[in-house]
Amino acid sequence: MPNYLENQETIVALATGKGNSALAIFRISGRQAITYISNCILQKNTFLASQPRSIKIYKFVDFNKKMVDEITVIKYLSPESYTGENMVEIICHGGEIIVEEILEILLKNGIRLANKGEFTRRAFLNGKMDLMKAESVQQIIGSTNKKQINCAREMYEGRTQKKLLELKTKLKSVLAILDAIIEFPEEDDIKEKDLSYIQKIDEIRCIIDEEIRKREKIISDIGTIIPIVGIANAGKSSLFNLIVGFNRVIVHYEEGTTRDAVSEEIIINGEKIKLIDTAGLNETENPIEILGIRKTWEYVEKGNIVLWVTPSNKKIMENEIKITKTIKSENIIAIISKSDLNKGEEKKKYLNDKGISYIQACFVNDKESNKVIDFIGEKIKKITKESDEEPGFICNKRHEEIIITIKKKISSLMEKAKIMGEETISYEIKGILTDLNEFVGETTSEEILNMIFSDFCVGK
Amino acid sequence: MPNYLENQETIVALATGKGNSALAIFRISGRQAITYISNCILQKNTFLASQPRSIKIYKFVDFNKKMVDEITVIKYLSPESYTGENMVEIICHGGEIIVEEILEILLKNGIRLANKGEFTRRAFLNGKMDLMKAESVQQIIGSTNKKQINCAREMYEGRTQKKLLELKTKLKSVLAILDAIIEFPEEDDIKEKDLSYIQKIDEIRCIIDEEIRKREKIISDIGTIIPIVGIANAGKSSLFNLIVGFNRVIVHYEEGTTRDAVSEEIIINGEKIKLIDTAGLNETENPIEILGIRKTWEYVEKGNIVLWVTPSNKKIMENEIKITKTIKSENIIAIISKSDLNKGEEKKKYLNDKGISYIQACFVNDKESNKVIDFIGEKIKKITKESDEEPGFICNKRHEEIIITIKKKISSLMEKAKIMGEETISYEIKGILTDLNEFVGETTSEEILNMIFSDFCVGK
Repeated sequence: MPNYLENQETIVALATGKGNSALAIFRISGRQAITYISNCILQKNTFLASQPRSIKIYKFVDFNKKMVDEITVIKYLSPESYTGENMVEIICHGGEIIVEEILEILLKNGIRLANKGEFTRRAFLNGKMDLMKAESVQQIIGSTNKKQINCAREMYEGRTQKKLLELKTKLKSVLAILDAIIEFPEEDDIKEKDLSYIQKIDEIRCIIDEEIRKREKIISDIGTIIPIVGIANAGKSSLFNLIVGFNRVIVHYEEGTTRDAVSEEIIINGEKIKLIDTAGLNETENPIEILGIRKTWEYVEKGNIVLWVTPSNKKIMENEIKITKTIKSENIIAIISKSDLNKGEEKKKYLNDKGISYIQACFVNDKESNKVIDFIGEKIKKITKESDEEPGFICNKRHEEIIITIKKKISSLMEKAKIMGEETISYEIKGILTDLNEFVGETTSEEILNMIFSDFCVGK
Repeated sequence: MPNYLENQETIVALATGKGNSALAIFRISGRQAITYISNCILQKNTFLASQPRSIKIYKFVDFNKKMVDEITVIKYLSPESYTGENMVEIICHGGEIIVEEILEILLKNGIRLANKGEFTRRAFLNGKMDLMKAESVQQIIGSTNKKQINCAREMYEGRTQKKLLELKTKLKSVLAILDAIIEFPEEDDIKEKDLSYIQKIDEIRCIIDEEIRKREKIISDIGTIIPIVGIANAGKSSLFNLIVGFNRVIVHYEEGTTRDAVSEEIIINGEKIKLIDTAGLNETENPIEILGIRKTWEYVEKGNIVLWVTPSNKKIMENEIKITKTIKSENIIAIISKSDLNKGEEKKKYLNDKGISYIQACFVNDKESNKVIDFIGEKIKKITKESDEEPGFICNKRHEEIIITIKKKISSLMEKAKIMGEETISYEIKGILTDLNEFVGETTSEEILNMIFSDFCVGK
């Protein structure tokens, strides 16, 4: 371990997101991190003498000692850091030019750019975390919904690893029975235990099947698309702008960038959602409009949830009835718009009869708009709601592949157990144990590590 | 001041950039900041008892005390913080879902979203910084080139304010002379000083003119466009990808986003540059190609600098000669591509004769590619190089408007000084002093503050 630490080059990465923002963070890790950074700080000696894990403001300077930025610096001494090495975190102003200037100076000082996942890889190699915790870090960042993130948190906190350990214990107990049979083939009371080990293997098969089921459920949740549909002039675009405008995180993000006119990725109740403003569902002979309407129907068929905007002052149209026939009532959220024009009693009756949830509002009224937002948020929460079941332990593609391999091995074992000798079964079970060791990262090759960390973002 | 502090609501903003990243920072400020945050931390008492400005890792939990994220927290006690109020900075994992989850919990705990520039506005109102330093913070973040950022740094470090103070002192000395004349109109030795105050006003006029000149220079630098031009198959797109691929900050940013096929904003030597991959400059009758070529020429005419890619193995074409006629030689950077196919002696001779800088390379060779990148970097640095002159004090639109008003007042004063009475001149000079007080923020209205801070980003 110490040898590994000593060989490390010092690496740097921008750890925060893109675009101009108030603040940005650089992470620097490696044996020489503190020395290198001290050369970029005007108050060099104060920095070198400062306490680790304390905050101080310094002037970051170029080679002519001219101030580039006023920065906050946090110093971490090995092994008390994320990577286990000496580390420095620089919090600077988040302008693109200043970020580039600082990076340029760091690189000229002998620090090199980090590879993807290199910080976490070092943390793993330096024994700061097990492989699954390392994987969970990336999973936490990359999740697109609550189920995924819950699954990642289980790994992060080590509960997943505990479950896998239990699975291994079960396999080992099967091995113990098999060993006894192989060792003492003549002893009758052991012979009688034959059935017990098959039963144990079957229990393991059940656990594996259950995990695969949970995994399939998570995957199906990725990338929810919610189209806003309705006839022309129903208020679809107003609703689109209302929801997008309300969305806190994305709205902050979007400043200064061009906004896609018809779709926007937003987060509602912990679900990443692609909200689509669609063309009006009107009867038309205009070929371009027809194309738009066909596309709308494609969205309607794909979408888990549909926001249907229907005006208070108009009768229900044929195309609108088609919506209610295409989609399950519980996945439709209806908004009766333009409440200032008509009471919309006919619409309400229709929706009540169909069992479709609705709210009536006038989008130009701020108070009513807020109600619409709350209503939609609650409905989406209800439809996409987390089940109370514990997250599974298959968190990514790598896990999935190993578990599917194990599933195949166990199925074939169960089939042939009766005709196989105990020694063959024992051999197969040992193979499965090896797979599980690979899963939890007890045995890892350079190749596996490369594969895992190449999916990471640069500052992790 | 204390009254102001006590009335503050507690505010929060995401202070870092957009998209999934390793880390993100939330800033929280207000009298109750520490109490509110302590309610979201599992180790509440440890946090409350912790030293300010020290780093500790905590579990950020939801209302059911379930962990949402492991966070690093920095606590600042009033008045020792950016805003002067109690403050907390939370460094969390930078996934969009987790950022939204944390924000949701903070808002439910009684914290509200910050307005644009609200942190810096509070810092200003609490006497933590003068108005110009407050403005410089936003300028540092929003700069698109080194001249702008240098100008902002002068403000940040207070040198601009010093210069303005000197200007005010000059104006006051004019007033002193005028007062003496008004007070003792009969004294001959004072009468003789008439000329001296006009000369002083003229000196002030010169300073103002010089500042306006510097400002114009900065503005003209905003948004450099560099097209890559050349005939079809010269290697333009390879060069485009090479430069964009090499660009450190932007390349990190771009992960997972769709890349515009023909243009990309990058930073080279502290200049924000829009690099454009253009259509080949070939003779054609195809209307679509003609459109592309016309657009290329528009870029060529607009661009300060042009990257011209010309293959080693082909003679110089008519359209290429047109490039060298349209643009000043010193603004053309030529790259003789495909050095593996031909020595390109003819091209070299032509470029030498024209005095155009060039490099010859084969883009598929990594070593030669690096040389091309270095060459282009150096050339751009040379062409856009910072002059050695000190940055001016007009840093933004607001400053510019005030200085132009002052310029007009002084010009009219200089014209009419001879026919004006001293009392009128004194009155006019006092008006200019008022303008300067507004410039440095000694007198500010709510309206001016609103205008200034509405340009800020949310986390500042």
